[in-house]
Amino acid sequence: MNHQENLSQLRKLMQEHQVDAYIIPSADPHLSEYVPEFYKQLRFICGFSGSMGTVVVTKDFAGLWTDFRYFQQAGKELINTGFELVKLKVQYQPEYIEWLHGCLPDGATVGFDFRLLPVSLVGQIEEGLSDKQVVLRNIDFIAGIWTERPLMPSQEAFLLDESNCGMSFSEKLKQVRNKMKQQKTNTLILPALDEIAWLFNLRGSDVIFNPVVLGFAVVTTTEVKLYLAEGKLNEQDLTSLHAQGIHVYPYDDFEGHLASLPITSEILIDPKKTSHQVQHILPGQVKLKFGDSLIAPLKSIKNSVEVANIISSMLRDGVAITRFFKWLEENAGSGKVTEWMAAEKITAYRAAQEGYAGPSFAPISAYGPNAAMPHYSPDQRDETKLKSEGLYLLDSGGHYFHGTTDITRTVPLGALTDEEMIDYTLVLSAMISGSMAKFPKGTRGYQIDGICRKQMWEHGINYGHGTGHGVGYFLNVHEGPQNIGPSNVPVAIEVGMLTSMEPGIYRAGKHGVRIENLILTVEDHTTDFGEFLSFETLTLAHIDTSCIVRSLLDKKQISWLNEYHQEVYRQLSPLLNSEEQSWLSEKCKAI
Amino acid sequence: MNHQENLSQLRKLMQEHQVDAYIIPSADPHLSEYVPEFYKQLRFICGFSGSMGTVVVTKDFAGLWTDFRYFQQAGKELINTGFELVKLKVQYQPEYIEWLHGCLPDGATVGFDFRLLPVSLVGQIEEGLSDKQVVLRNIDFIAGIWTERPLMPSQEAFLLDESNCGMSFSEKLKQVRNKMKQQKTNTLILPALDEIAWLFNLRGSDVIFNPVVLGFAVVTTTEVKLYLAEGKLNEQDLTSLHAQGIHVYPYDDFEGHLASLPITSEILIDPKKTSHQVQHILPGQVKLKFGDSLIAPLKSIKNSVEVANIISSMLRDGVAITRFFKWLEENAGSGKVTEWMAAEKITAYRAAQEGYAGPSFAPISAYGPNAAMPHYSPDQRDETKLKSEGLYLLDSGGHYFHGTTDITRTVPLGALTDEEMIDYTLVLSAMISGSMAKFPKGTRGYQIDGICRKQMWEHGINYGHGTGHGVGYFLNVHEGPQNIGPSNVPVAIEVGMLTSMEPGIYRAGKHGVRIENLILTVEDHTTDFGEFLSFETLTLAHIDTSCIVRSLLDKKQISWLNEYHQEVYRQLSPLLNSEEQSWLSEKCKAI
Repeated sequence: MNHQENLSQLRKLMQEHQVDAYIIPSADPHLSEYVPEFYKQLRFICGFSGSMGTVVVTKDFAGLWTDFRYFQQAGKELINTGFELVKLKVQYQPEYIEWLHGCLPDGATVGFDFRLLPVSLVGQIEEGLSDKQVVLRNIDFIAGIWTERPLMPSQEAFLLDESNCGMSFSEKLKQVRNKMKQQKTNTLILPALDEIAWLFNLRGSDVIFNPVVLGFAVVTTTEVKLYLAEGKLNEQDLTSLHAQGIHVYPYDDFEGHLASLPITSEILIDPKKTSHQVQHILPGQVKLKFGDSLIAPLKSIKNSVEVANIISSMLRDGVAITRFFKWLEENAGSGKVTEWMAAEKITAYRAAQEGYAGPSFAPISAYGPNAAMPHYSPDQRDETKLKSEGLYLLDSGGHYFHGTTDITRTVPLGALTDEEMIDYTLVLSAMISGSMAKFPKGTRGYQIDGICRKQMWEHGINYGHGTGHGVGYFLNVHEGPQNIGPSNVPVAIEVGMLTSMEPGIYRAGKHGVRIENLILTVEDHTTDFGEFLSFETLTLAHIDTSCIVRSLLDKKQISWLNEYHQEVYRQLSPLLNSEEQSWLSEKCKAI
Repeated sequence: MNHQENLSQLRKLMQEHQVDAYIIPSADPHLSEYVPEFYKQLRFICGFSGSMGTVVVTKDFAGLWTDFRYFQQAGKELINTGFELVKLKVQYQPEYIEWLHGCLPDGATVGFDFRLLPVSLVGQIEEGLSDKQVVLRNIDFIAGIWTERPLMPSQEAFLLDESNCGMSFSEKLKQVRNKMKQQKTNTLILPALDEIAWLFNLRGSDVIFNPVVLGFAVVTTTEVKLYLAEGKLNEQDLTSLHAQGIHVYPYDDFEGHLASLPITSEILIDPKKTSHQVQHILPGQVKLKFGDSLIAPLKSIKNSVEVANIISSMLRDGVAITRFFKWLEENAGSGKVTEWMAAEKITAYRAAQEGYAGPSFAPISAYGPNAAMPHYSPDQRDETKLKSEGLYLLDSGGHYFHGTTDITRTVPLGALTDEEMIDYTLVLSAMISGSMAKFPKGTRGYQIDGICRKQMWEHGINYGHGTGHGVGYFLNVHEGPQNIGPSNVPVAIEVGMLTSMEPGIYRAGKHGVRIENLILTVEDHTTDFGEFLSFETLTLAHIDTSCIVRSLLDKKQISWLNEYHQEVYRQLSPLLNSEEQSWLSEKCKAI
């Protein structure tokens, strides 16, 4: 593909249409974390294959704005493309707005495909350029240039039966409509794929790593409309949807239907999850309210069937993880294993498990200094081999038809430095502190974040990512609304939420440590001061104890670890052969 | 005063002016925590003397909405007034909006004095009643009914010289204008009294407990206008202001000037600190931006002169506190001391100190079960005496011309229950944990809040208030923008901020414990992970050690306490007589 050629075609179109600046984001109309091949317009236009970036083109400059995770990669990929790398100072900030403000003349026209930018971001663009009388124009130049564009995904989708998801569509709809009533809205527009998947008990494989189906939905107080590509569902599932009162329309009917919504509609949209296009085509007279998604909080609370299923998936995942680390211990010293091979291996061990549906994200299989990059992904072409020293980090997860997993373990492959052992122990200590926390109902993730980081901070150490994210049920491995981290997310950690607990320490050029379990919020006890909650750890896999600096853990933490290991062995050993059992038994020994 | 008569006069006016509902808040045009007597319209209209409430009157109902702190008091004060107490479910929430929504007809008129409600609250009212086509009308019925209204305050104000405040007006103005440039605004409107006091190095006594002066200010890129009642400043201070390029106008000119601001104005107002009236009278063509105050963050960082002065004020305050608790120990057992007398006593000890300017809030002098009410204030008429048992809590503070203090100590007056001792120790532990915290630059108060509460939560205990608030320099004892607490306040705890650290435990009907110091954020050390900060405790006063359950503190906490007591003794003893010295020496003994 000739990216310089793309660029000059784009500039030609810009000139023809009198567009002064054109914005191309890494996004699809559903604003998902992962997009189908059809929407990899960034890779097409400039060759950048990272998941997060924005191209902005003017007649004098063509740049890719991306964050520190991709500086190296983008640097290579953009060579001789005509596009320059612009390094973001702050991750996820649309810093190109400030840049546009500096270079656009008054009254300039800024073009982009309105379907690809969220309402919230377009608001920022409008605000940032407000004193320039800039015109925003809805225009898709990519369609005209990208001749060999991949097709839209055509994989079949399917419905989960109630024994798998624990709650029927009609029960979920009732909950959603109750929330709509509370929020005084009569119409919900749902473009977020995981929210549609949850509401309709629908799964598919339109997007890598997320078992979702491209679609839109509109829920009113009396009607439910679901927009899917034709052929997505078999007759039986379609009949089932119809029987539940759901009107199914072709995917492409969505925009036309929006344009003809009754003017009495009081519509709630989540500005971060909804494209500007939706706002743009709604009739001017409808009442539009912006607010957080009503579905996300409902989806985050796992019901008892989901919890039981997740626990059974954790057993299988734990077996795969155990086999992997036994294999690694036996083979890492051979000098033949690369990070890529290890990543393939864990995927293979998972794939051998019953009910496996695919990886929940690209495994982060990272040895030595590579593990210091929290979002590192191994390259198949990199032939660097693991050695009998230092730390190896594996952050990986699987989708099972009964749940989604996400687990990180860091293990020594041989001799370690004192610094590696201290860092390892401080991460473990943070992980255990968070997992042991008890807290009153209403506590928010950012308060628990402080508890996790306290000891590390005393050592002058910190990590630049959150401590925990929500995890879906056989759904996206990253979901909201809860978050354990420094961000001011005003969401309480509630009973039934499944969240990751994954502190880390990263020393550039040296090593990285992260240890991650998934934890379920449960009721603890009620006192004069109200209801208290705590976490139940659902992940079942041993945590290396050979590189612990004992003096950095307190008695309660050591008890927690020993009890956890007892439980891991008790649960996993019946599923292992005798050789594996004795290996795991060693790993689970009390310290 | 006949409140029923007031109510019928008000209803008569409402009828004459066709107003269906009338709102009377506890507020003045500056939306301060404390208001001058002139603005105690709530006490006038219905007899309620609490600091926080809202009266809403319709033809069928007259209610006072207030929070749990005032349920008992309001219950008594409203008897036979015609006004009913409406208990707020959530503190500070304008729950009357929902109520109005339920009882007002479509197209109703809601009246209030636009000067008394902030922009943000009026926005909530508009939003909450939006489907009713309600008309909001600016109308002051109180002025017509309140015949014997107190005068506006006429106390003299004065300027601080630079040796006292550490930064000249012109230097502060430069900082403010830099911020204005960053925020792309050319006009600031300042109605908040403490912000005006800080910017102009101006102090006064127009309001109880806050050493501020009633005024407004408008700062543009080229001009500064200050609006003060005539006669507030002497000739010398007025000359000094003029020499600094400040235009001083009569207080009442403010609104007229607003109405004639140039239409090229790009005005930043803080919607929580600015009355709806300001927005209402601005020319329609100006560009209005809503955002957090630019002054509050500047004011929160204490400069080196302020810090040195605060430290000297802490010495004097520590002497007063030491003398008070010695007196209390010698007299509480006499059976003659009431909470009120104790409150008078601490004020007298402070008043005897050099540079004392007045109390920074009404002392919370609370014995036994009364201390379980965090915002309790003793009643002069209550003759209940302290006894030789249980816990006594004193939360008090002073304004000195060189700084403002705020300190809480809880002490045993005799035998304690195990529960009292455990609660005492858990509060102390939380206070020390917070005070010892080290944290990276950028950490927010809510993360530190989790660190403070962790151990208490493990015991199933919590407290319903924040852990710490900002404290002004010879200014309001409560100031922002920082906050250590569960609220999602996205403000980092920065070097130079002065904050309180005051966890507590409250058992209704039994006892209350709170221990509070003021802490200054300082640089700690810089590591590979960036800059780390910590707290320096500025408050100097012993903390009772006789009721500590030693096993609930860890070694580091005990060291902290012993070192703190060494420092308290070292600093205070030169200012005490020999009897006081030996008493304090006992109290500061290492445990």
